[in-house]
Amino acid sequence: MRVGFLGLGTMGHPMAMNLHVAGVDLAVWNRQVDRTAAFRSLGVTIADDPRAAVTGADVVISMLADDASTHDVLIASGALDDVSNGAVHVNMATVSVAFSREMTAVHAARGVHYVAAPVLGRPNVAEAGNLTILAAGNAQAIEIIQPLFDVLGARTWRFGDRPEQANATKLAANFMIGCAIEAMSEASLLVEGFDVSAFSFLEMMTTAIFPVPAYQGYGAAIASSTFSPAGFKFSLAAKDQRLAVAAGEEAGAPMPFAGVLNDNYRDGIAHGDGDLDWGALSRVARRRAGHLE
Amino acid sequence: MRVGFLGLGTMGHPMAMNLHVAGVDLAVWNRQVDRTAAFRSLGVTIADDPRAAVTGADVVISMLADDASTHDVLIASGALDDVSNGAVHVNMATVSVAFSREMTAVHAARGVHYVAAPVLGRPNVAEAGNLTILAAGNAQAIEIIQPLFDVLGARTWRFGDRPEQANATKLAANFMIGCAIEAMSEASLLVEGFDVSAFSFLEMMTTAIFPVPAYQGYGAAIASSTFSPAGFKFSLAAKDQRLAVAAGEEAGAPMPFAGVLNDNYRDGIAHGDGDLDWGALSRVARRRAGHLE
Amino acid sequence: MRVGFLGLGTMGHPMAMNLHVAGVDLAVWNRQVDRTAAFRSLGVTIADDPRAAVTGADVVISMLADDASTHDVLIASGALDDVSNGAVHVNMATVSVAFSREMTAVHAARGVHYVAAPVLGRPNVAEAGNLTILAAGNAQAIEIIQPLFDVLGARTWRFGDRPEQANATKLAANFMIGCAIEAMSEASLLVEGFDVSAFSFLEMMTTAIFPVPAYQGYGAAIASSTFSPAGFKFSLAAKDQRLAVAAGEEAGAPMPFAGVLNDNYRDGIAHGDGDLDWGALSRVARRRAGHLE
Amino acid sequence: MRVGFLGLGTMGHPMAMNLHVAGVDLAVWNRQVDRTAAFRSLGVTIADDPRAAVTGADVVISMLADDASTHDVLIASGALDDVSNGAVHVNMATVSVAFSREMTAVHAARGVHYVAAPVLGRPNVAEAGNLTILAAGNAQAIEIIQPLFDVLGARTWRFGDRPEQANATKLAANFMIGCAIEAMSEASLLVEGFDVSAFSFLEMMTTAIFPVPAYQGYGAAIASSTFSPAGFKFSLAAKDQRLAVAAGEEAGAPMPFAGVLNDNYRDGIAHGDGDLDWGALSRVARRRAGHLE
Repeated sequence: MRVGFLGLGTMGHPMAMNLHVAGVDLAVWNRQVDRTAAFRSLGVTIADDPRAAVTGADVVISMLADDASTHDVLIASGALDDVSNGAVHVNMATVSVAFSREMTAVHAARGVHYVAAPVLGRPNVAEAGNLTILAAGNAQAIEIIQPLFDVLGARTWRFGDRPEQANATKLAANFMIGCAIEAMSEASLLVEGFDVSAFSFLEMMTTAIFPVPAYQGYGAAIASSTFSPAGFKFSLAAKDQRLAVAAGEEAGAPMPFAGVLNDNYRDGIAHGDGDLDWGALSRVARRRAGHLE
Repeated sequence: MRVGFLGLGTMGHPMAMNLHVAGVDLAVWNRQVDRTAAFRSLGVTIADDPRAAVTGADVVISMLADDASTHDVLIASGALDDVSNGAVHVNMATVSVAFSREMTAVHAARGVHYVAAPVLGRPNVAEAGNLTILAAGNAQAIEIIQPLFDVLGARTWRFGDRPEQANATKLAANFMIGCAIEAMSEASLLVEGFDVSAFSFLEMMTTAIFPVPAYQGYGAAIASSTFSPAGFKFSLAAKDQRLAVAAGEEAGAPMPFAGVLNDNYRDGIAHGDGDLDWGALSRVARRRAGHLE
Repeated sequence: MRVGFLGLGTMGHPMAMNLHVAGVDLAVWNRQVDRTAAFRSLGVTIADDPRAAVTGADVVISMLADDASTHDVLIASGALDDVSNGAVHVNMATVSVAFSREMTAVHAARGVHYVAAPVLGRPNVAEAGNLTILAAGNAQAIEIIQPLFDVLGARTWRFGDRPEQANATKLAANFMIGCAIEAMSEASLLVEGFDVSAFSFLEMMTTAIFPVPAYQGYGAAIASSTFSPAGFKFSLAAKDQRLAVAAGEEAGAPMPFAGVLNDNYRDGIAHGDGDLDWGALSRVARRRAGHLE
Repeated sequence: MRVGFLGLGTMGHPMAMNLHVAGVDLAVWNRQVDRTAAFRSLGVTIADDPRAAVTGADVVISMLADDASTHDVLIASGALDDVSNGAVHVNMATVSVAFSREMTAVHAARGVHYVAAPVLGRPNVAEAGNLTILAAGNAQAIEIIQPLFDVLGARTWRFGDRPEQANATKLAANFMIGCAIEAMSEASLLVEGFDVSAFSFLEMMTTAIFPVPAYQGYGAAIASSTFSPAGFKFSLAAKDQRLAVAAGEEAGAPMPFAGVLNDNYRDGIAHGDGDLDWGALSRVARRRAGHLE
C-alpha cells in the first residue's frame, strides 16, 4: 500500500514518522520544505508538490491547517485529479462540516473515497501513536485504512457513513474541553473572591472529581497562569469553536455555553492572546474580573 | 468525645452510622422520628429535640437541608445556647457564604467554634466513608474533629480560617459539575444534528477524554434519558447554583456559565423537573431544541 | 432612466408600484408570475426572465429573499452579463456582508456599479413611500439613483463607499429591534411573577419611556400574544440574526445579547414558531418560564 | 396634610422642593445637613432626626439610597414607632421586592400604611415635576396621597395592592433601559467593524426607529464616549440590576439578557467604572472588543 502524506505540521510530522517507522511506503509533502528534512535523511520519498505526492497512492492522508489550506492543496492545485480512481483520501484535520460535505461530493464525482478522521490528542500523543481517531465515511474504505489508523492511534471510533459526522463529533469534543477550561476559570474566580487560591481549589477538584489529564493539565496552567508555549493555540481553538457554532446552527440546537465561549475567544483574540495556549480562556475571565492588569 | 448529630437525611444517616460503627459516643436527632429507628435498635442515644442532642456534646455535627432549616434547628430552637463553651459545631451541609459568615459571628459571640465542612460525594460514597471533606475554620478546632473526618471521608482538604471559604469552595465544585452536565447536553445535541447518537459520542468522550465517574455517570444518564431515581435532586442543584451565583456576586466576577446554568435550572423547574436527578439539565437543552415532545 | 426591477414580494411589490406611479420607466420580473398582474394591468413591461428585465436598464433594483436567491437571479442566470457597462445595480434586500463583498467584486469585474441599499420599514411603510434607506457604495452611483430612493423612502442615510457597510448597518438595526423584543419579553415575565400583567406594564413602558412604534407594536403583540399574521416572519428575523452573528464574527466583537437571541431563534423554530411574527420571541421566553402550556 | 420627607438627595431634593412650592406643609430631614440649606432659607421645618420628621405627619415620604439606608432611617432609628396610627408611608426609592414585602408587614403590624411608589425620571425630570410614578399598595392610602403624586409627577400608574408589585415594575423598567444601552453598545461595535461610525449609526437609529430620549441620550453618550458627570451612576444601575435578578429568581423565569447585564455590570465595576454614568455599559463592550486601550 502506497501512502501520500500531505502536511507535516506539529501533528502531521509525528504521524507520518510513525507510519514510516511501521514500514509504510510513504511519499510526503509539506509547503515548507524544512519540515521534510528528517524524512529525507531516512530515505523517505519527498514530493515536490501535492500532485507528486498523491500520484500512484492507494491512500492519501492530509493533515492541513484548515478548510482553506485543504482546499488549496487538494483541489485548487489540481492534486485531486491525480488521485487514482478507487483510492481513499483520509482527511485527519479539523475542518467544518460544510467543507467536509462539499469535499465528499467533489471526491465522489472523481471516483475517490473521502474519509474524515479527525483526531484527539496533542503532539506528544501523536508521537506515541496514541491518538484517538474519530472516523466516518464509507465503511469499506475505512476497513482499508484501519491498519494505518492502528499505527497512528490507540483506538478508532466510527461515527457513520457520512464523513461530516466525524467532523461534527470532533467539534463537539473540542467544545466540551473548552467548557471544562471555562468552568475552571470561572470557579477559580469565585473561590479567589473568598481568598481561596485557584491552585488549592483546582488541586482538590482535579484530584477528587476530575482526575484526568484534560482537567489536570489546564488546571495547572490556570493556577500558575502559564500559557506558553502553546500546546494548542488559542486562535486555533477559537477557529474550532466557530466551526462548532456553525455546526450547532445546522443542528438547530440552542447552545448557550457555545455562545459564551465564542464571545470569550473573540475577547481573548482582541486582547492579543491568540498565540497563547488554549488555557488562556482563563485570562479572559480574569481580565473581566479586573484581576489581570 | 461526645458528639451530637443533627440531621439524618440521605447523607446524614450513613455519616452518623459510620461514626457509631467507629465507636464514637453519639446522640442523634432528626425531625422525622422514623429516620432514627436504625440508631435506636443499635442503642444509640436518640435526642427528643436539638437542645437535648447538643447538651453536653464536645462536638456538634449538623447535616441539614439548607440555610433556613439550619437556622431553625440551631438558632431559633435555642439549641446553640445549650452548646458548651469551647465546643465545636461542624456544619457539613451546603449553605450560603452569607449564612456561614453570620453563623460564624453568632457562634463566636457564644464562645462556640464554628467549622464549615461541606462534602463532595453521593449517599453511596457517604456510606463507604469515602467523602471528600472541604473544611475551613479555626485550625485548632479542625484538629479536634479531624479524627471524625477521618471516619467520614477519604480525605479532608482545608481551605482557610474562615468557615465561608469552605462553603465558597463547595459551591464552586458543584458549579463545575453542573458545567460538565451542561457541556455534555449541548454537545450531544450538536452531534445528534448529524445523526450521531449521544450514546456513542458520550461513550467516546468518557473513555478517551473524561474517564471519571462524574462524566461517566451523568453521561450514561443523558444518553439513556434516565433521571430517576434522583441521586442528587435537580431542585437542590438549582438551589446550590443560586448560592454560587450569590457568592459570585460577592466575588465581583463575571461568570457567564453560571448565568446560563441558573436560567436553565429555572427552566427545568418551571417544566416540573425539580424532583428528577441533576442530570435533567440535559432535558432543558433537549426541550429547547424541540427534541423532547 | 430605465429601471429593471427584480423581485415583487411583500416589499418589492409596493416599492416597484411607487416607482411606476412616480413615472419611472420600468421592466419588472418576479419568479411567480401572479405577482406581476397588477403591473400588467397598468401597462408596465413584464419581463419573462431576469435577463430580459435588466437588458438595456440604466439601473437594476433587486429585492430578493436572501443571498442564495439573489445569486440565482443575478449571477447564475447570467443576467449580470446582460447589464450594461456603467449601469448601477442596487440591491435593497438584507443579505450577508460576505455576499455583499463578493457581489461588489463580481460587479466591478463586469463594469457594473454595485450599491447596497437595504431598507427599514414594513410593507405598509413601503407602500407609503416612507422607507428608511441605508445606502453604501460608489458615491456617484448613489447620486444617480437618489431620485429613485426619494420615491421609495422618507430618507436615505449613507454609510460609506463599500456596499457591505450598509448591510452591516441593516443587520445591526434589526439586531437592536430584536433586543427590544427580547427585553420586553423578559421584563414581562418578571412583573408577571408579581401578578402585574404584561399589558399594564408594557402600556406604561411604551407610554412613559419608549413611545415609538417598534416598542408599541411589539409590546401590544406580546401583551396579547398575537403573532399572526406575520408582519415580519420569525424565520426571516432568525436568518437576519444569523447574518448579524456572522458580521459580528468579522468585527471580532463579543456580542452576548446577539448570542442569546441566536439561541432563542433556534428555540422558536424548533418549536414550530418560524411562520409567526418576529414578536414570537416572547413565546420562547414564556415557554421557558413554563407559561405557555 | 402634614408631610414628613426623608432624604434630600439628587432626586429627593427637587421632589421635596416641588411639594413646598405647591404649598404642602413639610418637615424635611437629611443625613447631611448641608442639603437642607435651601429649605431652611425658605422657612421649611428642618427636622433634627428622622423621628422628629415623622412625628405628627399624615404622610411620610422617603427617598433614600437603598434597602439598608431605608431600614436604618425608618426602622433601626425607631422612627416608625413615632408615625401616627393610620398614617401613610410612601417609599419612592428603588428597593428590593423582598425588602418591600418585609416593610409592608412591619408597617401593617404598627398600623401604618406602606405604599411603594418608585419613580422613572432623572433629576431634571424630578425638578420639572414630570416624574412617572409607579404606585402599589392599599388603594385608599394611594387615594390620600394622589394629590402629592400629582405635584411630583406627570402621571401615576397603579400596579396593584401589594407594594412589592410597584418595586418589581420599577426593576423591570430599569432592566429594559439597561437592555437598550447594551443593544446600542453591541450594535455599534458591529458596524464599527465595517468602518461605520457609532455616531452615524446611532444617529440613524435614534431618528428612524427609536426617537425617544432614553435612546437618544444614551446613544449620544455612547457615540461620544461621554460618561461623566453621571446622570445615574453605573454602580446604582448595577445594584438595581442585582435586585432585578433577585426578583426574576422569585418569578422563576429564565432571563438571559438579565444574566448578561449582571456580568457586564460586574465587569465595569471591576474596571473602576462604578462612578461613571450608566451608559458606561458601552465601555464594557468596547473593552472586551479591545477598542478601549
